[in-house]
Amino acid sequence: MEVRDCLISAPGKAILHGEHAVVHGKVALAVSLNLRTYLKLKARSDGKVCINLPNIDTFVCWELSELKQLTSSSEEIQRLDAELVKRLRKFIGVTNENLDSSASAILAFLYIYLSLFGSGDMPSLTMSVWSELPTGAGLGSSAAYSVCLAAAFLCATGNIPTPLKEWEQTGRWCQEDLELINSWAFQGEKIIHGNPSGVDNAVGTWGGMLRFLAGKIIPLSRVPLLRILLTNTKVPRSTKVLVARVKDKINKFPSVMIPVLDSVDAISCTCEKVLTEMTCEPITGDHYNILEELIDINQHHLNVIGVGHPSLDMLCQVTAARGLHSKLTGAGGGGCGITLLRPETDSTTVQGTMKDLRDCGYDCWETSIGGPGVQQHFPSSVKEEIMEVLNRY
Amino acid sequence: MEVRDCLISAPGKAILHGEHAVVHGKVALAVSLNLRTYLKLKARSDGKVCINLPNIDTFVCWELSELKQLTSSSEEIQRLDAELVKRLRKFIGVTNENLDSSASAILAFLYIYLSLFGSGDMPSLTMSVWSELPTGAGLGSSAAYSVCLAAAFLCATGNIPTPLKEWEQTGRWCQEDLELINSWAFQGEKIIHGNPSGVDNAVGTWGGMLRFLAGKIIPLSRVPLLRILLTNTKVPRSTKVLVARVKDKINKFPSVMIPVLDSVDAISCTCEKVLTEMTCEPITGDHYNILEELIDINQHHLNVIGVGHPSLDMLCQVTAARGLHSKLTGAGGGGCGITLLRPETDSTTVQGTMKDLRDCGYDCWETSIGGPGVQQHFPSSVKEEIMEVLNRY
Repeated sequence: MEVRDCLISAPGKAILHGEHAVVHGKVALAVSLNLRTYLKLKARSDGKVCINLPNIDTFVCWELSELKQLTSSSEEIQRLDAELVKRLRKFIGVTNENLDSSASAILAFLYIYLSLFGSGDMPSLTMSVWSELPTGAGLGSSAAYSVCLAAAFLCATGNIPTPLKEWEQTGRWCQEDLELINSWAFQGEKIIHGNPSGVDNAVGTWGGMLRFLAGKIIPLSRVPLLRILLTNTKVPRSTKVLVARVKDKINKFPSVMIPVLDSVDAISCTCEKVLTEMTCEPITGDHYNILEELIDINQHHLNVIGVGHPSLDMLCQVTAARGLHSKLTGAGGGGCGITLLRPETDSTTVQGTMKDLRDCGYDCWETSIGGPGVQQHFPSSVKEEIMEVLNRY
Repeated sequence: MEVRDCLISAPGKAILHGEHAVVHGKVALAVSLNLRTYLKLKARSDGKVCINLPNIDTFVCWELSELKQLTSSSEEIQRLDAELVKRLRKFIGVTNENLDSSASAILAFLYIYLSLFGSGDMPSLTMSVWSELPTGAGLGSSAAYSVCLAAAFLCATGNIPTPLKEWEQTGRWCQEDLELINSWAFQGEKIIHGNPSGVDNAVGTWGGMLRFLAGKIIPLSRVPLLRILLTNTKVPRSTKVLVARVKDKINKFPSVMIPVLDSVDAISCTCEKVLTEMTCEPITGDHYNILEELIDINQHHLNVIGVGHPSLDMLCQVTAARGLHSKLTGAGGGGCGITLLRPETDSTTVQGTMKDLRDCGYDCWETSIGGPGVQQHFPSSVKEEIMEVLNRY
């Protein structure tokens, strides 16, 4: 069989409020981050399957005949086919438990490719992926990749339709198709992360915002698109260590810390309420005032629970000097932060702030949160520089 | 009659934890601040009564004959003698409601002098006062003055004994005498402030630390002496405006703010517990670690409830750069902050930090909290520069 060429994208993820508190039974709000991962499928006629992942310097080609030996036909999407994973690990020569990004991306590709095509005619193709997201920064880059993989191959096998209409630049799938994409993307996430929460792939699939509470993920129907700066302090941190630090601090000062988690919970709920209001009444400066206040309060709380970092203090200070409000997003202890921009924030302010942040040694992007989830694109609807990268292969 | 010369001192006050939260029914910990007010009584034989308050440029002399017309004999210490206050205001020519520091200091002096001597033989004397405390900075300078006034005149009238033993440098009174001093000092505070909480005069009288909850003041028997830096940012602020701001913020975000007040309450209780432990077990670095953590957490909370200020952020930043932990004390929005020093903090660090803070334009003192309350002194036990000021008059 020959696949139809297609171009898919999925967004990254940021935690707007509730990081860490969510580990202790409180609400977290996860939002789509409009730094996207783009995946291009292209048919080949030489019996090869090639993948190009220039972000992580990964370029591999196999003969179809090699892959055919690994055949799987489970199409099981409720749980991972452990036997297949084992075969694949052996195939690519991975022995240790901790996979690097290259190995995990290859494994996720092979797992989904073989699960979906393994029972029938396996196509010769090139898959090229380019992401605007930094890797390993807690911004859901692996989930965006898994979502793109799932959507592309579900489309290619005809499990879901091609949603792109001729007269549209981008197409989206219906709810049922999104559920299927999300399920397969979750398999990819399991291969990459072992025991993921499922939040990242859900955000990558549905976009917008979702409420995460006690393992339950509830996509919120409508949220406004918010302009933000996303800053990567590039200070490395271990989520595991930070989660343990918070737990220790709660155990050390329970009467002091438990109310702080309650307050964080209330921040998430208040924020959700305001964002919902913003979709059904005229947006005013007051809405933004509240969003800004909640960001400031939560950033203080995150410092209190012990996941702040001087680099994040600096981010807050630099943006505050321009009248902007920031908080860390995700694990903290370095990593990334978000800065809310107002609709009226002018480009001089934005450019100046980005320059200040880059002068601190940080990476900084102007982007938005709350945008669409996985999409199919006409090539002409995608930024030139991205198409330029994808067309190299 | 002729008074015996005497020299009295009383400490200022700082809030260690619980400022603002106390307005909303939570615990506050008030501690004595070892920046002291010194009062010297000296007999005269020319029938004059003179007061010298060089801190506030106030120097007044009266003829005894003038004061005798104002005679009072109430000795009422449960409530203020409103008639006497009225006569006194007329006597010194005050008409408006808001007294300046000079007028209120004179009124408090006259009230206590006349109440205690008015029924008998009024002595000719000079009272000179010098304070290490800045005025109007929320550090209990008026209460320290009122406590000295009360102790000096209760001593002079023989209502309480002279506690100084010949072989001692300083003397303190027994519990019962302290109660009496505190009651009279509270009258002075009422004249100066209208509706004081009674915390400041209690701290000035008992020293150490006290727990303040729902209007009830409980002196804590033993607390360790803690080295601190006291910094005055000199940024003016209105306590009334700040209290209103906190109330507004609680009304705006009750579910977010009420847990923060609960957390502040727990900070005060945890701190009290640790300080109590420090008096009955060997003091370790761990005790100081906890005290530092509580200071940091509370400073974040005070920012959350809206009483922070860039000058206080700067104070925290400057001291953090030296490994020291600071929080605002009192109303916030500028005003004063305290920085905890460890027993082992060396003088290079202390001097360097003080220089940095002074370079910010702040006043800064190395002092301690938790020290003794009102005391009588032998002149030789008092710092030379203070005696030098008091002996000028």
